[in-house]
Amino acid sequence: MTTTPTAPQRLGAAGAEPAPAPFAVRAQSALAAHGPLVFGLDPSGAVLEAWGVGDTPDGLDRFVDIVVEALPGVVGMVKPQSAFYERHGWRGIASLARLMGTCREAGLLVLLDAKRGDVGSTNEAYAEAYLGPDAALAADALTITPYLGLGAMAPLLDRAAACGAGIFVVTRSSNPEGRPLQQARLPDGDTVEQALVDDIAALNRRFVPSGLGPVGAVFGPTHGPPAFDLAAMNGLFLAPGIGAQGATPADVAACFASCPDRVLPAASRSLLDAGPDPAGLRGAAQALAGELRRALGL
Amino acid sequence: MTTTPTAPQRLGAAGAEPAPAPFAVRAQSALAAHGPLVFGLDPSGAVLEAWGVGDTPDGLDRFVDIVVEALPGVVGMVKPQSAFYERHGWRGIASLARLMGTCREAGLLVLLDAKRGDVGSTNEAYAEAYLGPDAALAADALTITPYLGLGAMAPLLDRAAACGAGIFVVTRSSNPEGRPLQQARLPDGDTVEQALVDDIAALNRRFVPSGLGPVGAVFGPTHGPPAFDLAAMNGLFLAPGIGAQGATPADVAACFASCPDRVLPAASRSLLDAGPDPAGLRGAAQALAGELRRALGL
Repeated sequence: MTTTPTAPQRLGAAGAEPAPAPFAVRAQSALAAHGPLVFGLDPSGAVLEAWGVGDTPDGLDRFVDIVVEALPGVVGMVKPQSAFYERHGWRGIASLARLMGTCREAGLLVLLDAKRGDVGSTNEAYAEAYLGPDAALAADALTITPYLGLGAMAPLLDRAAACGAGIFVVTRSSNPEGRPLQQARLPDGDTVEQALVDDIAALNRRFVPSGLGPVGAVFGPTHGPPAFDLAAMNGLFLAPGIGAQGATPADVAACFASCPDRVLPAASRSLLDAGPDPAGLRGAAQALAGELRRALGL
Repeated sequence: MTTTPTAPQRLGAAGAEPAPAPFAVRAQSALAAHGPLVFGLDPSGAVLEAWGVGDTPDGLDRFVDIVVEALPGVVGMVKPQSAFYERHGWRGIASLARLMGTCREAGLLVLLDAKRGDVGSTNEAYAEAYLGPDAALAADALTITPYLGLGAMAPLLDRAAACGAGIFVVTRSSNPEGRPLQQARLPDGDTVEQALVDDIAALNRRFVPSGLGPVGAVFGPTHGPPAFDLAAMNGLFLAPGIGAQGATPADVAACFASCPDRVLPAASRSLLDAGPDPAGLRGAAQALAGELRRALGL
């Protein structure tokens, strides 16, 4: 699979390193090297207590120490969920920044699951917060939520494309409560989720005429394969909810049968339950990565 | 207007102050005392530069110094937009915490515009971050986004109801890009935005059998009055986009003609342009608050 970099839009800090390769290229390299598993880093109060570090800012810092020691070389991508760091206020954000920076230095891709999304200049502010070399919490990719319209997300999408980052638009969620809205119908008869996949495909064609573009979709595998073509989106899929939330590797394989090499299945609780022993975390990740590779035929 | 507190669910810190009065009651008191204007605190890079404080964490801290001096006694409610604080990483969050705490101590209500929303335990984490006496960034009210389904937001809604806080669900946005999704139709023929208003009404009846409930809606006034009944929601409305984003006091009055005493119109850029002089900020707020009072007949 080849991807043409969007050269005229590449954004590097003045006089600094050139922009990295496009996210989709880096993600597929990581996937080839380590398997498709994305390790979700959701340090809930229950996890911090179970790990014996305490549900405090200091405990969260110790959680970060443990995962940055355990995970490099084991998985290709980690996915911190912002909410669990925001719980601890500014100290939690300082821990998140350290987690993200340390993981990226160690060669892990960092997908920040923050589900941001607003209008106009607010989206510019979110883009400045999370995307590009000058961002306070620079991520390789960011999740966003489309209720205000995908067209309003241009500041986030453009900045991601320009700096080699990725965006995952929440499209189909794993939970049952999201189905009515996501399956509501537009005047042309398409569902909201189908229209999003089509609109993402159009954006990816604009950003990258051939190969995978910078815009992906969060797409839950628990509701079966969709009636529309996922491969035509020309982007990556983040499949949440593997393990504790009920989706199995077989569900992932069935949902993404048309593009098994473009799906990034994420698990968190079922892996964190194997901690805090680093060998336990590594073993759980390697076992699930192996299951996913086999189910997806990779 | 009377409101029955949801007594069995009230949540106070153990041995500490009892939970405050319900948000809707406090908001309507603030509105009666100071008029309906919500002062949006969106310190974009452009605002920080225009104010001469610099687009840096120190500059943001200075912005906070200025607004916490200028605004108490002038408006009843402020609405910091989280994105503009997140831009500055953990130091920006520390500034936001100071802004929120200082404003609340001075008697201002703080509506944090963060548009959070996820599933399951992640929403519990957001609730713990922003709602209740033990929250790291305790707000009087929080905006949330419903793409994953209003039913999935129960941890946020329940915690808000229990601790006297409010939730504003993004329902109709001011921007044109949000219209297709928000007007998509459910199987029963209702639009997404209409179904949300109905579902919020049902939640408010459950939380507060008579009077206004803790769940409000973000409802943009730029698209004219809706075909459905806003008064029946029994909740408050946050009307964004007054001034720089194009909505006028007359638009607000037309959209909320059935419940003019339940709307909280928010302006930011047009007010911040009158800074950094505290007298300028106060004058701009008082002038717009007067216009809104007259337009709404309050």
